[in-house]
Amino acid sequence: MSNRQKFLDEFPVLVEELTAVLEGYGMPKEAIEWYQRSLNYNTPGGKLNRGLSVVDTYAILKGYKSVDDLAAEEYKKVALLGWCIELLQAYFLVADDMMDKSITRRGQPCWYRVDNVNDIAINDAFMLEAAIYVLLKKHFKQDSYYVDLLELFHDVTFQTELGQLLDLITAPEDHVDLSKFSLAKHSFIVIFKTAYYSFYLPVALAMFAAGINNEKDLKQAQDVLIPLGEYFQIQDDYLDCFGTPEQIGKIGTDIQDNKCSWIVNKALQLANAEQRKILDENYGRKDAACEEKCKVIFNDLAIEKHYKEYEEKVAEDLKAMIANIDESRGFKKEVLTAFLEKVYKRTK
Amino acid sequence: MSNRQKFLDEFPVLVEELTAVLEGYGMPKEAIEWYQRSLNYNTPGGKLNRGLSVVDTYAILKGYKSVDDLAAEEYKKVALLGWCIELLQAYFLVADDMMDKSITRRGQPCWYRVDNVNDIAINDAFMLEAAIYVLLKKHFKQDSYYVDLLELFHDVTFQTELGQLLDLITAPEDHVDLSKFSLAKHSFIVIFKTAYYSFYLPVALAMFAAGINNEKDLKQAQDVLIPLGEYFQIQDDYLDCFGTPEQIGKIGTDIQDNKCSWIVNKALQLANAEQRKILDENYGRKDAACEEKCKVIFNDLAIEKHYKEYEEKVAEDLKAMIANIDESRGFKKEVLTAFLEKVYKRTK
Repeated sequence: MSNRQKFLDEFPVLVEELTAVLEGYGMPKEAIEWYQRSLNYNTPGGKLNRGLSVVDTYAILKGYKSVDDLAAEEYKKVALLGWCIELLQAYFLVADDMMDKSITRRGQPCWYRVDNVNDIAINDAFMLEAAIYVLLKKHFKQDSYYVDLLELFHDVTFQTELGQLLDLITAPEDHVDLSKFSLAKHSFIVIFKTAYYSFYLPVALAMFAAGINNEKDLKQAQDVLIPLGEYFQIQDDYLDCFGTPEQIGKIGTDIQDNKCSWIVNKALQLANAEQRKILDENYGRKDAACEEKCKVIFNDLAIEKHYKEYEEKVAEDLKAMIANIDESRGFKKEVLTAFLEKVYKRTK
Repeated sequence: MSNRQKFLDEFPVLVEELTAVLEGYGMPKEAIEWYQRSLNYNTPGGKLNRGLSVVDTYAILKGYKSVDDLAAEEYKKVALLGWCIELLQAYFLVADDMMDKSITRRGQPCWYRVDNVNDIAINDAFMLEAAIYVLLKKHFKQDSYYVDLLELFHDVTFQTELGQLLDLITAPEDHVDLSKFSLAKHSFIVIFKTAYYSFYLPVALAMFAAGINNEKDLKQAQDVLIPLGEYFQIQDDYLDCFGTPEQIGKIGTDIQDNKCSWIVNKALQLANAEQRKILDENYGRKDAACEEKCKVIFNDLAIEKHYKEYEEKVAEDLKAMIANIDESRGFKKEVLTAFLEKVYKRTK
């Protein structure tokens, strides 16, 4: 059985546990069914990279050759931490889709667009988040690192919300003002909105579960994973603009959607007055001709070349940082190289 | 200085502390100002009953004659717990107003209706909740009952969301179906949506802060405060329908809004087939004539008399439960009588 399938098989168990809590409260059947539907609709169905990487990282830290070497109960606990990240992500995505007025997510209608859901999706998002703490309490209350897990989820949740806030007020879809953009702001947005919860959180959770909890080791992990997460998102921005639809599985819409992408920020940094004027007049418009004018500027400014220079530089820096990791307290470079290898020069 | 003013004066300090956290993260100025504006707009401005009752309850448990007898640092910590409830309430209200499509709240436009806010209010609600955990970590991390506080907030948050979910799917404003209503469901909704966070939470927080943390004492508190909170909400439902505008400071709209109110549930319990038909056809319609037809049924069924019987019965039961409270471990009846006195036969 694949790691992915094994991980997926844990999810119905968690839904059962949450159901039991609601039944214990005497909650009427239709509300229990509503919650189950929301959990099942919004939580699995993605790539599960974040959840799976908790399990993978834990196995590396414990020196297991394969995820299959974990004892059954040990696997269940670590997988549960992985599912807690997936629940956190579900909470964010249900809300983000409402704020972005998105239409589809993971090949199905966004939750708020499902019949009879509408604005109830806001409360459903809250309840996806709340599931994290119900599950952590049930499974980790007796562990010495229980408070560490709670604080980690609190901290990372808040950081993600800060990134989302800055993104929302910097790049509203309906009001283009490129003077609000900058590479520094882009960096803050992607680190807070994506890197903490997608890169640092899975590793930190696995570290606590494996008993590698020295502040210095958490900092070593963070110091690599945050710039790595930033690089991942910059790559995402690059692929949206320069990747083929075959590569990325969709048609990029960042330019028309007024996204605060690394691409436009790099272009703004390099543009002369005339080029800037064209970007001001054409970026963020729902118009293919405007989009094309922006792409011409990006080509004139050799943004692809600048991206590739950035990518080589950041990969080199990250490799150097990883080489210098202190493994004396049990943290392992291999955790970080595994992440870097998944990101470096990916094309999708 | 009044207790209320003293409590209010603590809030700007908390906003400063949260600001310092964002500054520490290097968050750009416009996002910090946005968060400050949301905190100030959404958190104070209500009656502050919940927050103030944390302080009052703590003073009773510690045997202080007045809130002024608390040492300065002691006051600040307990008031902070009070503000955490107000933040929790702000989180719920910002979201509820969006889900209910409300127009005003506390005499000002609902936050989502403020210029430029709109759907960003969803993320702002998230960040109001997150503030609770930032503040608890800063002020209570070293206390033995820190985990108790975290779990209490997690549990009560989830309970409130469960109540909100059942309310939303039982009584959607745009689809009347009285067959979904029942007194049992009404009871679940008001206990979960209101009683836990408004009645049990303030007392439980004060108990932990005062070191009265025996499970039996928390249960004694809950066993009185949950039915008391239910009574409070039933009273609210009663006043919405039968209170004068002078009494309640607004014109009741529960009938036209299809609210799952105790009044209509009691009427549905008592109605004959003909009366039921009239309610089915007239409840939840945005029409004064329909509303009036419902009121005629309520009068024919003597709902006011039934309410007053309920009120006498519940007040008597609560007094008997309070009389039987075991004070041997330090919990005090006075905490509960103070709450009951504020609720019993209030007219606004």
